[in-house]
Amino acid sequence: MSLQSPSQMPLAVNHISVDCVVLGFDGEKLRVLLVKRNGEEDGKVFHDMKLPGGLIYTDENLDDAARRVLRELTGFKNINLLQFKAYGSKDRTKNQKDVHWLERAIQMKVDRIVTIAYIALVRINRSLASASHQHEIGWVPLAEVGELAFDHNIILGDAIDAVRRQAEDDPSYLFDLLPPKFTILQLRTLYERVNGKRQDVRNFQKKVNQLDYVVALDEREQGVAHRAARLYRFDRKMFRRTRR
Amino acid sequence: MSLQSPSQMPLAVNHISVDCVVLGFDGEKLRVLLVKRNGEEDGKVFHDMKLPGGLIYTDENLDDAARRVLRELTGFKNINLLQFKAYGSKDRTKNQKDVHWLERAIQMKVDRIVTIAYIALVRINRSLASASHQHEIGWVPLAEVGELAFDHNIILGDAIDAVRRQAEDDPSYLFDLLPPKFTILQLRTLYERVNGKRQDVRNFQKKVNQLDYVVALDEREQGVAHRAARLYRFDRKMFRRTRR
Repeated sequence: MSLQSPSQMPLAVNHISVDCVVLGFDGEKLRVLLVKRNGEEDGKVFHDMKLPGGLIYTDENLDDAARRVLRELTGFKNINLLQFKAYGSKDRTKNQKDVHWLERAIQMKVDRIVTIAYIALVRINRSLASASHQHEIGWVPLAEVGELAFDHNIILGDAIDAVRRQAEDDPSYLFDLLPPKFTILQLRTLYERVNGKRQDVRNFQKKVNQLDYVVALDEREQGVAHRAARLYRFDRKMFRRTRR
Repeated sequence: MSLQSPSQMPLAVNHISVDCVVLGFDGEKLRVLLVKRNGEEDGKVFHDMKLPGGLIYTDENLDDAARRVLRELTGFKNINLLQFKAYGSKDRTKNQKDVHWLERAIQMKVDRIVTIAYIALVRINRSLASASHQHEIGWVPLAEVGELAFDHNIILGDAIDAVRRQAEDDPSYLFDLLPPKFTILQLRTLYERVNGKRQDVRNFQKKVNQLDYVVALDEREQGVAHRAARLYRFDRKMFRRTRR
């Protein structure tokens, strides 16, 4: 701490929140979990969307707060949350609509909110059971995400970059997004969505065949109109062995 | 934000700070920049060390605050600061000594301080010109770092891990720690210190010979007692070309 007192330079009065970028994959598209926000500005009601998040309580660590917020809003427990960045620009609250909405919600004056952002990858078929029925929450395809509250569009963009980098470091990372049994098409589509570029079909199949930890099953897709494709599973034990 | 009001659950009243882990390399050891802290507890004066850091002002972004704090304490400008983690555990202020010291310094009650931690790698021969003469600051070898204020030992440990991971991702990262002209021994020692393990001398020399961006110069060390070793330089342009 530098020892300047408030008389020399005003210290910021801050609120601290956590925001969670929860990503899922429906076999075709990446989706993000968003909460509907209902507000009123200039006498007009508005509805828009935001990331699941909330202010931290006095007795909570940052990670605890992120887990609690996600549990309250989605019913999700035992989610692997990765803290990836803090956002504290004063521009976060430049939109008066956001400030008024928050001040009404917490019944306190809001100066600045520093938010600590988390990422979680979850299987999209997980059932959403919001602990409180006040919240409408749903999986929105990334391409259909409109203007979000605060700086949540920036946070979402940074989160996708962080997922891409994390997947480059650790190829097992993305398997949390797939069902326990998946097709090569699903796996390839997921890679394309995360990396934002096409994969050559043949090369991708070849690459996967070389991976000991992507195991072909004696099973095929069920109830599909096209020719049923073979199913695969991710073998985490094998993955750990090959990475040593 | 979840819409719970303070009447349901107390919201934390927080201060936000930034702390900088500034690392240097003296050719032998990694060193960290620490500030001397003078305090009084139970009527006794104490002296210990802390990371350079400070509370953020109302008009500052997080990154701006980190740059300002570093400039005030060291005179360093144009430092490449990387935000790497937020720390917000309530245990951060479990030591009453830290709380009392801070409350005296800022003349405000302290509940919790969330700190956003940054890393910077700098050349150790950079001159330290503290803007204010109140602060004693110096380069301490990592192995000689004692018990620091708050959770700064934890932050320092996490920073070393982050540097190691960053260097794995981007081999150019560590060259910021070396002088413009360096020996292979210096480069190898740096890798050993960051990775915490020995490198085989022969293999390391071979590996370096294969790197287009580590360029051998027609110069040798000056004024050394042992046989003068060849000097090398890091070619950033070449590095960027090979990484494409």
